[in-house]
Amino acid sequence: MSETGLEKVSSNKTFDGDLIKYKFKSAALGGLDANFNLYLPPQASSGKVPILVYLAGLTCTEDNGAQKGAFFAAASAQGIALLFPDTSPRGAGIEGEDDDWDFGTGAGFYLNASNPKYAKHYNMLTHVTLELPQVIETAGLPIDFKRQSIFGHSMGGHGALTLYLSSPTKQYRSASAFAPISNPTKCPWGEKAFKGYLQGGVEEAAAQYDATELIAKVKEPVHILIDYGTGDNFYKQGQLLPENFLKAARDAGHDELQVRVRSQEGYDHSYYFISTFASDHIHFHANLLKQ
Amino acid sequence: MSETGLEKVSSNKTFDGDLIKYKFKSAALGGLDANFNLYLPPQASSGKVPILVYLAGLTCTEDNGAQKGAFFAAASAQGIALLFPDTSPRGAGIEGEDDDWDFGTGAGFYLNASNPKYAKHYNMLTHVTLELPQVIETAGLPIDFKRQSIFGHSMGGHGALTLYLSSPTKQYRSASAFAPISNPTKCPWGEKAFKGYLQGGVEEAAAQYDATELIAKVKEPVHILIDYGTGDNFYKQGQLLPENFLKAARDAGHDELQVRVRSQEGYDHSYYFISTFASDHIHFHANLLKQ
Repeated sequence: MSETGLEKVSSNKTFDGDLIKYKFKSAALGGLDANFNLYLPPQASSGKVPILVYLAGLTCTEDNGAQKGAFFAAASAQGIALLFPDTSPRGAGIEGEDDDWDFGTGAGFYLNASNPKYAKHYNMLTHVTLELPQVIETAGLPIDFKRQSIFGHSMGGHGALTLYLSSPTKQYRSASAFAPISNPTKCPWGEKAFKGYLQGGVEEAAAQYDATELIAKVKEPVHILIDYGTGDNFYKQGQLLPENFLKAARDAGHDELQVRVRSQEGYDHSYYFISTFASDHIHFHANLLKQ
Repeated sequence: MSETGLEKVSSNKTFDGDLIKYKFKSAALGGLDANFNLYLPPQASSGKVPILVYLAGLTCTEDNGAQKGAFFAAASAQGIALLFPDTSPRGAGIEGEDDDWDFGTGAGFYLNASNPKYAKHYNMLTHVTLELPQVIETAGLPIDFKRQSIFGHSMGGHGALTLYLSSPTKQYRSASAFAPISNPTKCPWGEKAFKGYLQGGVEEAAAQYDATELIAKVKEPVHILIDYGTGDNFYKQGQLLPENFLKAARDAGHDELQVRVRSQEGYDHSYYFISTFASDHIHFHANLLKQ
């Protein structure tokens, strides 16, 4: 363990770079051990590189995107680091936390809980936006956090869009998402999560945690790419609602140079879909990260 | 279920093609249910395509290569189908079959067992070389089995090399392998497997199931590519022995146009290694499959 408290768990060489798993005691998550994966492309051996944060979906860990996303070929070629956080605190010991697959463990929704029952541990927003950059910088790893972008899948797509759109400091240069939960105050997954984590429930969420609500209020130019599949059962069930996001974006004056929402014929919600468009998304961000 | 007994379990669109999981009652595996994954590239919708068989390693199923191999981008671009068999029969109910991770379930070694205890079920050689092509052809799927090649990882690399080198009918045009068990009669994994599955033990194996023994006797030109990582712990432990295979190949007159064995600095035994060189291997086979 280094002085920063960062412990290297494992390291795998891939596409000429290194995928490293770290563990540390996370203050944001109430002192629990937290894992993350960091991919350093070969260019990181000769200087600081920009970073793209990948937020995974419900039930996932820091490993799913790394193992199945097929992100490394393009990240290596473009010289971009990838950060894979976990999706929730682990082992908080809160009653009921492990009862459902779409709430609690594996389902942190990238927010800071205001319900006292969860407020000590469920602070994935702070964990992703503040704590991880700080821990990584303190450890002296060769990342240039002034060049950050963010993307994600499903719940992680919700996370990527909302963290991008709500950051007062413009922390991220761009956001993209695979099959994101785009209007969570209007779908069962979001309603359940917000009622549980937030004292003010769905109403509290609208102001900060709903991409469709947020894009309606943003005046500045944005850089957003979204893909979803027409064969995605969660899309068909109304959990994703990308059309709502698109309409709100257009209504607010964000044209297709700023917000692209692509419907991909026949693709589903799996990593087989994500990996197909992985390279597209990396290149979308690379254009902005390499400026 | 179709008349051939082939049941479609699931289907995922990926890289413009379809990854389909099938189930059927396998005669070769003693009547047990067997699963396999078949990737049909987009070109399969307008005619028969060549096929590349991927054999996975110890503890794996038909899913590991499909989920983590990053094979589909190149297979889609090249118009090559991919077949992912399982690594052993499942649920044969033989005493001791599930005791170890490197023998029995998940560890079929791509041979036909001659030990009566295993001979009814453990016939992965017949399953891969005869039964799966027959089942797929009978179902009318658009595969041209006159254009077949084979590759694999670790135990599956052993399988790919031995099935390629021992086929009297030249069933496969080429073979490649990631970190293959290259001389199994000389390493602990192979010795254990052969003593268990074969009445004649290691001695019986030398004639048919050891790539290093086989390449020494092959006179015809061959097409073989092997990659292994210098950071691979199983390589360091002497389970893989690629140098033995290389020496036997050169001694038998197979030059580097016929047999390439590449040592990859710092890579390990994982799918992070495999995915890095996945595209290389697909293109190696494509050159021969598309003739």
